Amino acid sequence: MKILIQNATMISMDEKRPKVERNIDIFIIDNKIKEIGINLLKKIDDKGEVNNSDLKIIDATDKIVMPGLINTHSHVPMSIFRETIDGYSLQEWLYTKIWPIEDKLTSEDIYYASLLSFVEMIETGCTTINDMYFMTDEIIKAMKHTGIRLQTTRALMDMVSKEEGEARFDELFRLKEEYAKVPKLTFNAGIHGLYTANERYIKKCVEFAKNNNIIAHMHFCENSKEVEDIIEIYRKTPIDVLLENFGDIHILLAHAVKLDEQDIQKMAKLDVSIAHCPISNLKLGCGIAKVTEMMKNGINVALGTDGQGSGSSLDMFEVMKITALLQKGITENANAVNSYDILKMGTINGAKALDLDKEIGSIEEGKEADIIILNLEKTIAKPENDLISQIVYNTNGSDVETTIVGGDILMENKILNININKKELYKKCEEILKNSPQ
Amino acid sequence: MKILIQNATMISMDEKRPKVERNIDIFIIDNKIKEIGINLLKKIDDKGEVNNSDLKIIDATDKIVMPGLINTHSHVPMSIFRETIDGYSLQEWLYTKIWPIEDKLTSEDIYYASLLSFVEMIETGCTTINDMYFMTDEIIKAMKHTGIRLQTTRALMDMVSKEEGEARFDELFRLKEEYAKVPKLTFNAGIHGLYTANERYIKKCVEFAKNNNIIAHMHFCENSKEVEDIIEIYRKTPIDVLLENFGDIHILLAHAVKLDEQDIQKMAKLDVSIAHCPISNLKLGCGIAKVTEMMKNGINVALGTDGQGSGSSLDMFEVMKITALLQKGITENANAVNSYDILKMGTINGAKALDLDKEIGSIEEGKEADIIILNLEKTIAKPENDLISQIVYNTNGSDVETTIVGGDILMENKILNININKKELYKKCEEILKNSPQ
Repeated sequence: MKILIQNATMISMDEKRPKVERNIDIFIIDNKIKEIGINLLKKIDDKGEVNNSDLKIIDATDKIVMPGLINTHSHVPMSIFRETIDGYSLQEWLYTKIWPIEDKLTSEDIYYASLLSFVEMIETGCTTINDMYFMTDEIIKAMKHTGIRLQTTRALMDMVSKEEGEARFDELFRLKEEYAKVPKLTFNAGIHGLYTANERYIKKCVEFAKNNNIIAHMHFCENSKEVEDIIEIYRKTPIDVLLENFGDIHILLAHAVKLDEQDIQKMAKLDVSIAHCPISNLKLGCGIAKVTEMMKNGINVALGTDGQGSGSSLDMFEVMKITALLQKGITENANAVNSYDILKMGTINGAKALDLDKEIGSIEEGKEADIIILNLEKTIAKPENDLISQIVYNTNGSDVETTIVGGDILMENKILNININKKELYKKCEEILKNSPQ
Repeated sequence: MKILIQNATMISMDEKRPKVERNIDIFIIDNKIKEIGINLLKKIDDKGEVNNSDLKIIDATDKIVMPGLINTHSHVPMSIFRETIDGYSLQEWLYTKIWPIEDKLTSEDIYYASLLSFVEMIETGCTTINDMYFMTDEIIKAMKHTGIRLQTTRALMDMVSKEEGEARFDELFRLKEEYAKVPKLTFNAGIHGLYTANERYIKKCVEFAKNNNIIAHMHFCENSKEVEDIIEIYRKTPIDVLLENFGDIHILLAHAVKLDEQDIQKMAKLDVSIAHCPISNLKLGCGIAKVTEMMKNGINVALGTDGQGSGSSLDMFEVMKITALLQKGITENANAVNSYDILKMGTINGAKALDLDKEIGSIEEGKEADIIILNLEKTIAKPENDLISQIVYNTNGSDVETTIVGGDILMENKILNININKKELYKKCEEILKNSPQ
């Protein structure tokens, strides 16, 4: 399929280009961005690259075109737990609401809960998500149905039994082989956390990641309790366990809240990215990660929502806004981070975190066509003084009109272009919790 | 005019009623809520209270009906400064962007900038705003044009000259007399701040408020610099200046960031409300107010956006969400505040803060009909596990479909019902900054 996006205001996130460009056309062939320029229709017509019947034209006049956002930490099927925590402490919530229900989830539940998350992504302009959960086949099935870009895993942990811990490597290996040819799908070694493992198991995880040439993705220092647990298991600080074991691979750490400045300096010696999940960190009472300090140390900071049970939604615009505000607030410096750096966190830094920056994260010729179109012709965006800041501070998923992933138009002008009955999907997801033990 | 809202899911914020009620009708006559009940159409028809041609029916099936939100601290014409701060420190921004432009604003500029803010309010479900700026006649003119509810003032300060400081009392007195009969309009004594006054002037302000039976509204302890300035002028801590001078009146303090627990305990002895403005406080690098501590001490906490230059927008849903998240984050307690308390801050507490709680802040028979209707039939709100939390954490102004203020339907199904050409208004507001000295 060939698509021509015409007359856009483009924020490409390609550092070689101006931050904002006007009157830009983007020509897409199949899954890739073929050309970016001005008045492309005539040019591609002259070249005979297209006959009109074959070309889908999208008019982006007065619209903003940017790369799809990248969510680097989530638990895709947790959509069903949205807003279940009010009035509970974190421990009460896990013990009474989450774990008993998770134990009973069927494969069908996982499929529909994942579908809901993927629709939510499409509708809020997020084109890639990094997932860590279980029953991964169902998540992949939902991903294939919707056309979203997914990096997933089988959560590696050593809690239940040694056999179960080992079996998870086999399952992840099987998944990676079985779905090797599915477009838009990649895998990582999803290590649940240092506190649900031990040094022997962690070494096996790292070896698995290295042998399979994939990154590792792990919860890390989310709250004080976790840090205490790690020290008890390893008799070392979390950062020392990290330094001693993860030197050989790219590792994506979710949260990284409970780190001081020295920890961050040490961490910067590794090939590490951070999946900063501020909404979840606040809502669960974990605290606020020192993102400004990480940036100073050259660490690649990307963003995530975490599951909707703690993150409320998969709306990455909300995550960008809160990231920016928090860093200014905790450093007491209005100039602590700039808006373009925040947009990078939501796009190209996310691609780097997932080792996908050659394919996605910016609008560049040769890259995958993961593109969203926003309509900011609204009172709340006027006057337009600084478009980048407007997107960071004052835009949300509901401003997204069109979402393209790998050249597939999954939503156009707010109408989903996938085979889903939303009302029925909502009903299915309502029933999962209603029928669960409370 | 008579309005019947039918079949709503109602969150009345009336503590005497259940938090959420289904299938509710609300009957409005002129500016007031006449009756709340079930199947009201037959009942009011039987009573002969209405013939059908006279009755406007609004179907609220599958919609949420709640009181309009109340913004207790803003500078209405500052819409034009939206997203102008990126890359500047607070001082640089004020000296190079804000003050030079404010000095040149014409009365027409103030009128259009205010119109933009009022349209923004209507579109995002905020029905009452508390304003502090200058050229108040223009702000009132815009308010009358849009039908929004406004509490305003003439900012009282003693910086320029003693004569100017005194003249401002006269102006506020004149405004209060001249516009005494304008519906939906009230005044307060808007004291700019302790740091732009002195003890003699503050005493006069308090006397003015008391004599005119209005509340005082004042910036207070927004950042560290302000606290230092106050100590230099008064040779006392801000809280001591407050205790010694504001014992006789209701005072609404904007920000109140730089207070410790002892300050908050002392403050609780006064008749005080807080206008908590978390987005502005974060964005300007001021810090995070101890709202949970204030609540513990029984202080009435309401919410505000501040001007859009620092607050980005007038979307009070965003303010509610960030308030809740921040308090959980800084106390490291997922259970620090509950969602219903946050909704109170956005509604009835705001009404109390403005001394308007007999008229607005909840849906109650006899109160003014300040009502908004939300559509949450969207993926990002599914499944519906907890409606109150959904509104706090995962709703924003774009979910508002209908806005009624004092019985006037200012927006219905997203269509503005006021005499405004939005495109022209946007253009006018763009021009104000373009034509300003930079």
